[in-house]
Amino acid sequence: MQSQLALKHLRQQEQELAVLRERQRIARDLHDAVSQTLFSAGLMLDKLIARGGHDSFTEQTLLRLTDLSRSATAEMRTILYELRPDALANADLADLLTNLADIVSARTQAAVETRLDSLTLPDDAQIAVYRIAQEAINNLIKHANPSSVLIELVNASDAVTLTIADDGAGFDPAHSGAGRFGLANMIERAERVGAALHIDSEPGQGTVIRLRLESVWEMA
Amino acid sequence: MQSQLALKHLRQQEQELAVLRERQRIARDLHDAVSQTLFSAGLMLDKLIARGGHDSFTEQTLLRLTDLSRSATAEMRTILYELRPDALANADLADLLTNLADIVSARTQAAVETRLDSLTLPDDAQIAVYRIAQEAINNLIKHANPSSVLIELVNASDAVTLTIADDGAGFDPAHSGAGRFGLANMIERAERVGAALHIDSEPGQGTVIRLRLESVWEMA
Repeated sequence: MQSQLALKHLRQQEQELAVLRERQRIARDLHDAVSQTLFSAGLMLDKLIARGGHDSFTEQTLLRLTDLSRSATAEMRTILYELRPDALANADLADLLTNLADIVSARTQAAVETRLDSLTLPDDAQIAVYRIAQEAINNLIKHANPSSVLIELVNASDAVTLTIADDGAGFDPAHSGAGRFGLANMIERAERVGAALHIDSEPGQGTVIRLRLESVWEMA
Repeated sequence: MQSQLALKHLRQQEQELAVLRERQRIARDLHDAVSQTLFSAGLMLDKLIARGGHDSFTEQTLLRLTDLSRSATAEMRTILYELRPDALANADLADLLTNLADIVSARTQAAVETRLDSLTLPDDAQIAVYRIAQEAINNLIKHANPSSVLIELVNASDAVTLTIADDGAGFDPAHSGAGRFGLANMIERAERVGAALHIDSEPGQGTVIRLRLESVWEMA
């Protein structure tokens, strides 16, 4: 009886999985259309700006439109990572982080510096690092208003370390509670893969987030 | 033993479902950012065009950019339907088809007319109708080059009928084989929900696709 219930549940799940996979595939096709559109728009804007002869309002608006098209393009790439099975797990972490850096660069006024070692971590660790970086970068875009940002990934013999540092608004970690800024989420993700997450911030002094995974290769 | 294997399989599927659902949720959040970006871009373009005083090349490019931003916006809405669980099943079919009409309107030079009765069909039928309309509209955008398009949904007492008609290139159904233009897919989807699909086309004479679902309410 119990195993019959399990089999029924199994079949329902199989159906739901099939539906989700089909939707992911269709969303991916549609995604390609939007990305092509954004690409065309970017080319047109470049051409229009290169042509020159615009008054300063037009010029400013065209430059702003170029930023918007750049950020939408980077965000569409980020969506594609979610829609392609295994895309996150198989990607070079340096590429994933470069894409996040592009978003920061398009969405803020900050100068963004990246120093990224090429590497692909075991699935769980790779996805944890990427999700934590996503969350950190969302916070930074929404709250920090920095003038410079550093995203660094170092692959040393003893550990892999991700650092995301900004010179923006900062916050008081003691008074923000783990629930704010998705910090609880980040900490939990780090713990689940045995990584250490340090958040160093105070109001007006920017934020440094450092994630350290020791001997992560043994997890694979 | 067999039931143990089933349980193991069940647990693997549960995990995969959880991952897919999380990715869907994250893709949805990212999606909102892109849609907002497109919205801002659209407003800026409107303002720039309304201001006037542009040379004709600039004017033409701005109008073309407006079209691109409109089509990307409609396509992003279509992606959102894939990313939100139950969004397709619960939507008004008239809204889903209006969105497809917006895409045709932005992607082609055609005048697009819609006559759409408001209704929501039982899940399977609703999704079949929508997928068939999507496929028909993809074909139309890619191959038909029409100057006018009609999308009509009639909710009569005996049947629900979807008609998608264009005056474009057309094709010879006898010689295109069911595999081309996703026709086999459309026919199979129609059959699975007990609907009748008629495709009427010849080269140079446009295409009329009519899908008829009789007494569909009894399927719910």
